[in-house]
Amino acid sequence: MTLYKRYADELAHLIAQGTLRVDERLPSVREASRRRGLSEMTVLRAYHRLEARGLIVARPRSGYFVQAQRQRLLPKPQLSAPPPLATAVDKGEQIHALLSAIRQPRIVPLGSAFPSPRLLPLKALHGALNRSVRRLDPLRTVIDLSPGNPELRRLIALRYRGDGIAIDADDLVITDGALEALNLCLQAVTRPGDTVILESPTFYAALQALERLHLKAVEVPTDPETGIDLDALDTAVRRHRPAAVWLMTSFQNPLGASVPEWRRQALVQLLAGHGVPLIEDDVYGELYYGATRPKPAKACDAEGLVLHCASFSKCLAPGYRIGWAAPGRWTAAVERLKLGSSLSAAVPSQLALVDYLAGGNYSRHLRQLRDTLSSARDAMIEAIQLHFPPGTRVTRPDGGYFLWLELPGDIDTRALQQAALARDISLAPGALFSAREDFRHCLRINYGHPDDPRVLPAIATLGALLAG
Amino acid sequence: MTLYKRYADELAHLIAQGTLRVDERLPSVREASRRRGLSEMTVLRAYHRLEARGLIVARPRSGYFVQAQRQRLLPKPQLSAPPPLATAVDKGEQIHALLSAIRQPRIVPLGSAFPSPRLLPLKALHGALNRSVRRLDPLRTVIDLSPGNPELRRLIALRYRGDGIAIDADDLVITDGALEALNLCLQAVTRPGDTVILESPTFYAALQALERLHLKAVEVPTDPETGIDLDALDTAVRRHRPAAVWLMTSFQNPLGASVPEWRRQALVQLLAGHGVPLIEDDVYGELYYGATRPKPAKACDAEGLVLHCASFSKCLAPGYRIGWAAPGRWTAAVERLKLGSSLSAAVPSQLALVDYLAGGNYSRHLRQLRDTLSSARDAMIEAIQLHFPPGTRVTRPDGGYFLWLELPGDIDTRALQQAALARDISLAPGALFSAREDFRHCLRINYGHPDDPRVLPAIATLGALLAG
Repeated sequence: MTLYKRYADELAHLIAQGTLRVDERLPSVREASRRRGLSEMTVLRAYHRLEARGLIVARPRSGYFVQAQRQRLLPKPQLSAPPPLATAVDKGEQIHALLSAIRQPRIVPLGSAFPSPRLLPLKALHGALNRSVRRLDPLRTVIDLSPGNPELRRLIALRYRGDGIAIDADDLVITDGALEALNLCLQAVTRPGDTVILESPTFYAALQALERLHLKAVEVPTDPETGIDLDALDTAVRRHRPAAVWLMTSFQNPLGASVPEWRRQALVQLLAGHGVPLIEDDVYGELYYGATRPKPAKACDAEGLVLHCASFSKCLAPGYRIGWAAPGRWTAAVERLKLGSSLSAAVPSQLALVDYLAGGNYSRHLRQLRDTLSSARDAMIEAIQLHFPPGTRVTRPDGGYFLWLELPGDIDTRALQQAALARDISLAPGALFSAREDFRHCLRINYGHPDDPRVLPAIATLGALLAG
Repeated sequence: MTLYKRYADELAHLIAQGTLRVDERLPSVREASRRRGLSEMTVLRAYHRLEARGLIVARPRSGYFVQAQRQRLLPKPQLSAPPPLATAVDKGEQIHALLSAIRQPRIVPLGSAFPSPRLLPLKALHGALNRSVRRLDPLRTVIDLSPGNPELRRLIALRYRGDGIAIDADDLVITDGALEALNLCLQAVTRPGDTVILESPTFYAALQALERLHLKAVEVPTDPETGIDLDALDTAVRRHRPAAVWLMTSFQNPLGASVPEWRRQALVQLLAGHGVPLIEDDVYGELYYGATRPKPAKACDAEGLVLHCASFSKCLAPGYRIGWAAPGRWTAAVERLKLGSSLSAAVPSQLALVDYLAGGNYSRHLRQLRDTLSSARDAMIEAIQLHFPPGTRVTRPDGGYFLWLELPGDIDTRALQQAALARDISLAPGALFSAREDFRHCLRINYGHPDDPRVLPAIATLGALLAG
């Protein structure tokens, strides 16, 4: 990240924390420059950036001051309150029907699970693919079997290490995307009939996975900003004796919620106390808008009870289908399951990612992507404020690319989805995200397509549909 | 295939069938040329080819005569006789341990499941990969989801149609290799606790799949030449009411057995009469040495009860991980399972195969590969005859690249495997291929690496080990 952006982020963080208070004066440009060892131009550009974001304001002849934040027009959605029941999962067909509707390119992808592929360095990846297959030793096509290409595992481990997260190459099993990693981890720790604890709302693929393995779901109250409620989780663990907990610590899909870092340790300890494995889906962990990567629960997993899963699909190479698991105690079991279920991930995809990661441009790409997504979030929230009916609630996530909306009254978002599809707009209705019939008045909106000129007008269209 | 090869194959077939008898005179070159509308040169080359294979012999001034086949020195293995019991499967770890030993390139790959990658057109595939990713529309990386790239499905269907097998693009779900296809098909038709009928011996991945899904196995007697015994199958179906039958109709792994074509219809009808789905693993179907592709059971599946699975991994592109299922009635269910378990197959791999198949060289490659493999089979059998102890039995398959051996006395092939590994030679012990402890005196040998100069000497080494 360029110096001025880093300095601006640091100040934004201090403002968000309240360390710098409203109406407090920032150091003068000259003073900040001297104290921080930055050029005056760097400080000035940082201040301009904060000014553009509405965080500070220049007062003539007085300097820069922290500005009162623009009133948050739309409140955040409420804490969910699922009943404390174990539910057999039978939503696969409904989920599939809802998802298959949104694949056509003519549809405005507000319901998509991916960011715009135009934000990804596909050209560089193709170059990497070309270079790596040209050098390919034929034998590699039959020996790069599970647990995956050693160099790829080393480079992934290196990224974790760079963020202060202790994951080694030998801890990793390469899979066909995070989805396969999650499915294999779930299979490794459960037997048919077991109960698994999920967030409420939860990522629909978790529901599909439970259904396929004949597992029961217990959904636990989850805050739209701070994630799963630890007290409720503790109660649920005691009551249901689950075989596993499956959740997302950072930028949860669909809420965008992140468990505060100090609470992640508590989460891991709570589950370790009960000996319950935690399946951690961290596919959005790299898409943070703050200064540093939030440490996953895996980072404080002393017991090997966290099965951490992630991928390149959301931030680099969706179609390449390369993900991984760091399954702790179950590494050998997951490796075995991978070998028996689909042998290995595609070798060309693995080699292309080795070449791309070794090239050293991944961090820069991610910085750009995060910048783009955080601006896209603000633009999308603004459009929703403008067009959606009063009483609408919306999240404001610090990473990822999803908003979660609660609509007022008794709007059924599956009906809204149908009406929107008739206008070539997709969205993800709330019903997708629960084993029961919760969240009927909710929806998830993808703001990861800021390059698509149809996106903001589509919000206006949705607003008009909601106005009736 | 060139004309002379096709004509030679036709004659070889007539000789094998006994339509042309030993010492029978073939038509003169001139006569055959006139009657078949072939040039004399073509007929002569065909005769020379048959002569080289020892099938005919030229007698001076008399013409060409069918030759008595060289005495078969080693008899074929016996029909298996598994007990008629449903067995819980618990061999995953043993199988995994046996398989992980054989991955290093320094090991002579007699235990490998793949043919030599040097026999595959990897250079052409890399060209296809380069061309196709260069043209790639970024959106394709997020919309080529299950059931897979439409053009790839069309080209696969076209190949089936070319062989007179009625499979359409819409019948196909693209998967991460045939292994995933088989696993998803099994999942679609079973519930935990169900029983599944397998061949005896069976492909070990079937055992792994059953174990993972908590299914019980019933193994049915299987002839080393003609495959599963239909009477025994009928009895087993009546007795065990299985949720499915899983088998290979062509060049079964490990036996190399092929169900005779006239009996495939009977097989399909038998199972249809009981309403039992058939999971047909046809990954070796394209590696036939005869004149035409054996028609899979799927070709006579009027009821949609056959879930047919295949891939490019054994004959074209092992590391690309592209396979498919034609799951009949369960097409929508398998498509749904694929989407929920690993989303889609790698897009670069799919596009590369589209480009390669459209290029039109696949059939020629396959003809060369079949030629190479059938010569490799003969050379391998000869080496075994020379070096293995008397009493050894061996198959002589008409396709694929595996031999199945029964060793005399009470040799335990797991001990042999250990001794061989110490000499950097892998093999697949018979115990891999049964849910119980059958086939301890058997082994599978891969003859698909004729380009590897270590292979035939390794057979001599095994013979010396066996001689003690």
